[in-house]
Amino acid sequence: MPSLAPENLLEALRWRYATKAFDPAKRIPADVWSALEEALVLSPSSYGLQPYHFIVVQDPALRARLRAVSWNQAQVEEASHLVVLAYHRKLDVAWADAFLDRVVEVRGVPKESLGGYRKAILGDLIEGPRSAISDHWAARQLYIAYGNLMTSAALLGVDTCPLEGLDPAAYDQILDLEQTPWKTAAALTLGYRAEGDKYATLPKVRFDQKTLIEYR
Amino acid sequence: MPSLAPENLLEALRWRYATKAFDPAKRIPADVWSALEEALVLSPSSYGLQPYHFIVVQDPALRARLRAVSWNQAQVEEASHLVVLAYHRKLDVAWADAFLDRVVEVRGVPKESLGGYRKAILGDLIEGPRSAISDHWAARQLYIAYGNLMTSAALLGVDTCPLEGLDPAAYDQILDLEQTPWKTAAALTLGYRAEGDKYATLPKVRFDQKTLIEYR
Repeated sequence: MPSLAPENLLEALRWRYATKAFDPAKRIPADVWSALEEALVLSPSSYGLQPYHFIVVQDPALRARLRAVSWNQAQVEEASHLVVLAYHRKLDVAWADAFLDRVVEVRGVPKESLGGYRKAILGDLIEGPRSAISDHWAARQLYIAYGNLMTSAALLGVDTCPLEGLDPAAYDQILDLEQTPWKTAAALTLGYRAEGDKYATLPKVRFDQKTLIEYR
Repeated sequence: MPSLAPENLLEALRWRYATKAFDPAKRIPADVWSALEEALVLSPSSYGLQPYHFIVVQDPALRARLRAVSWNQAQVEEASHLVVLAYHRKLDVAWADAFLDRVVEVRGVPKESLGGYRKAILGDLIEGPRSAISDHWAARQLYIAYGNLMTSAALLGVDTCPLEGLDPAAYDQILDLEQTPWKTAAALTLGYRAEGDKYATLPKVRFDQKTLIEYR
């Protein structure tokens, strides 16, 4: 059973901030990156459907083009890693079946035994009342992974800067996503803060606990 | 600088699962709960706006009523803690100003110095192109907190079960949210797994890494 001390969790969450200046010379070591990838894969999602796709952009030319459609934010080029987070634009039977096939593969159960589960997924998100907003639903699941990845990175001492300030349609075009199921929602840059990033020492602004959390 | 070992992060994320059976006798200790509350407060959000609200439901009668509109899932009553996650249904100038007032308070800067920032927020989410979908935008920010909270809990050895299988409108009615800015999106139950929960030992189903993560 995991048993991180509460103060170590809080130390990491207080330490993290939206890093504006990354040290371009500092790269995330392979073992740390590999753990962050696995953390992404392990993210929970509703029904387990994982209606998302992550693109790690390493090509400098591609990074430069993406920076140009990200308000010219330097992190896009300077951070060790750039992950583009995309969600399924229109959930379909093929995706549900790909997932159910995976259940069969991992758990060794007969596909027939999943008939009720399949019917529930289809009747809700694919042919049912929420099919019209399956893109919004998928984006929400993606943001669970987003939160999980930022927290995971902080615990490993990896800095991040979440980027919603980008042109999603331009990302889709540059990354050739238009003919795929995937639509860009946001990006995350990861690496290590540059010495002297003035944002690192600004007090974190949060509403106080009583404003955010209520007891009933 | 935080320095959790990658294997300890992964141990926690592999250990977590959507807990169906909680041990009703096991309560989350005060210091652990307090850390989870602070983790929630520390969640990052776009512009820092924190367009969300968390309701911790402790009253057993209220829990019973919520269970009835949550597909009768036992976790709602049996888990140590139940958190309802709600997002801002229609971002407004008042919320933006409440946030900016908080910046002034925490960072000791004059309100006038935040004029450009205020204009950017208003021109985007409140009076601008995304004002029509500010509810979806707010829900996404909420789901960052959702992911952060589940990961944080796992690291502290606290089990969770995320619940999207609930009737949000009925939650809003039972919790008297209809005349407030808040709309229920989902819930999280937290506590400790009951011995013998058969879901605890099922292999976790995830697409393989190559399906979810692509390199460019």
